[in-house]
Amino acid sequence: MNLSQLDTLAQDIIIRAGERIKQSLHKEMTITEKSSPSDLVTNIDMETEQFFVKEVSEALPEHRLLGEEGFGDTITDWDGYVWIVDPIDGTTNFINQQRNFCITVGIYKDGVGELGYIYQVMTGELISAIRGQGAYQNGVLLPRLKNVEFEDSLIGVNASWVAPNRHIDHHQVAKLIKRVRGTRSYGSAALEISYVVTGRLDAYFSMRLSAWDVAGGMVIANEVGALCGTLGGGEFDLLKKQPFIIANPALFEELVKDYLIS
Amino acid sequence: MNLSQLDTLAQDIIIRAGERIKQSLHKEMTITEKSSPSDLVTNIDMETEQFFVKEVSEALPEHRLLGEEGFGDTITDWDGYVWIVDPIDGTTNFINQQRNFCITVGIYKDGVGELGYIYQVMTGELISAIRGQGAYQNGVLLPRLKNVEFEDSLIGVNASWVAPNRHIDHHQVAKLIKRVRGTRSYGSAALEISYVVTGRLDAYFSMRLSAWDVAGGMVIANEVGALCGTLGGGEFDLLKKQPFIIANPALFEELVKDYLIS
Repeated sequence: MNLSQLDTLAQDIIIRAGERIKQSLHKEMTITEKSSPSDLVTNIDMETEQFFVKEVSEALPEHRLLGEEGFGDTITDWDGYVWIVDPIDGTTNFINQQRNFCITVGIYKDGVGELGYIYQVMTGELISAIRGQGAYQNGVLLPRLKNVEFEDSLIGVNASWVAPNRHIDHHQVAKLIKRVRGTRSYGSAALEISYVVTGRLDAYFSMRLSAWDVAGGMVIANEVGALCGTLGGGEFDLLKKQPFIIANPALFEELVKDYLIS
Repeated sequence: MNLSQLDTLAQDIIIRAGERIKQSLHKEMTITEKSSPSDLVTNIDMETEQFFVKEVSEALPEHRLLGEEGFGDTITDWDGYVWIVDPIDGTTNFINQQRNFCITVGIYKDGVGELGYIYQVMTGELISAIRGQGAYQNGVLLPRLKNVEFEDSLIGVNASWVAPNRHIDHHQVAKLIKRVRGTRSYGSAALEISYVVTGRLDAYFSMRLSAWDVAGGMVIANEVGALCGTLGGGEFDLLKKQPFIIANPALFEELVKDYLIS
């Protein structure tokens, strides 16, 4: 199976997973707390991940799958093909709003992101990329990002990083938000990344993200010229929960060095 | 003209204004700063308000109009019918995102809100209400809000109110956001109010809102049982720029008294 065929298969699985989620909105769902009262999972998150595991293992038994809900494989190395899947990114939005959540998938080969997807289920907006072949929104090529001015920028940042917290110097974040045109917060890392790669936001950062939140988005980011990394400016390690930033290329370095570096 | 006919006329003008805005997205626009670099207006805001002024004055010459951009009447009393119009609420989103902005209109008679509208132009979502007759989203009756628990709630609050500022004790806002399930920020008061009246957010507050931001939303709020007011808990004075809160009835009093009162 070449990359183009793999892309067709992945898009087909993602769209069908989205259909299942939409149908589930009419049924009662089960909500369970994970690490904290604001870290929730539903039976739909779990069933959707199991759907991915089944579809991928049937079509491509040699591919492995790393999923947020743990139904895939235990990944400690990146040999061969690995699908990195968040079946519902923005579970709180899914529960409270029945919108503003995404399916996001990255397909990595020997640790290199080859294919990336962010699918906003309720609007049908599908952003996809094959490495080196550009990024598309529902089949339309996304332009590479134009440089923006700091003072004209919109930044995705949750209010919790401006309040005292254990992960970042909130005084620095407060200084940053006074300088930019405005801030937004949508409650789904994948949705916010999709806003940066389309130029609707000029940066987004959060302090505790995992591979499944960003793996698809990082492949897309490369194709439009958005820069990604940790807040130390280094590469995001897909095996760790850690800070993550994606930004317009004109903002990335200054954001990290002057405001966010720990 | 009875209220039902007035409703039909208002919806017709709003939809046509939305069409004009959508068409304008293909053209170059002129952006001007108002009070600050983050307070912007475009020629489309102005042309849309002028469209409202023309349509209303032609159809109903005895009605007055108060608009954000100042093309309507100078209002110092609320006698008779007054249309309170924000032609584009969320101008920064309009400029940077080409989405997530609203037309919002309240029609008041002798100071009482009779009709309210929030129209999210790019999605076509139109929320409307006639006083005492319920609120509708594109013709479907909106249910009255169910009580929510504080700890399960999602609150619309911009990060700037969690940073040191002249308008509210940011320590209190930081305490609040640690208690709720999460916060969101969409950059359009009308959009955020539309999220509260549909139960997608459980509260929203901001410190410097004007009549045109909230007049339509307050009429809709009444019909679904959402409570509105200033942060002192009093009624919002449509002649002043001031703090505004809208909340689920189970949260309103505690939010104001324990966290937000000045």
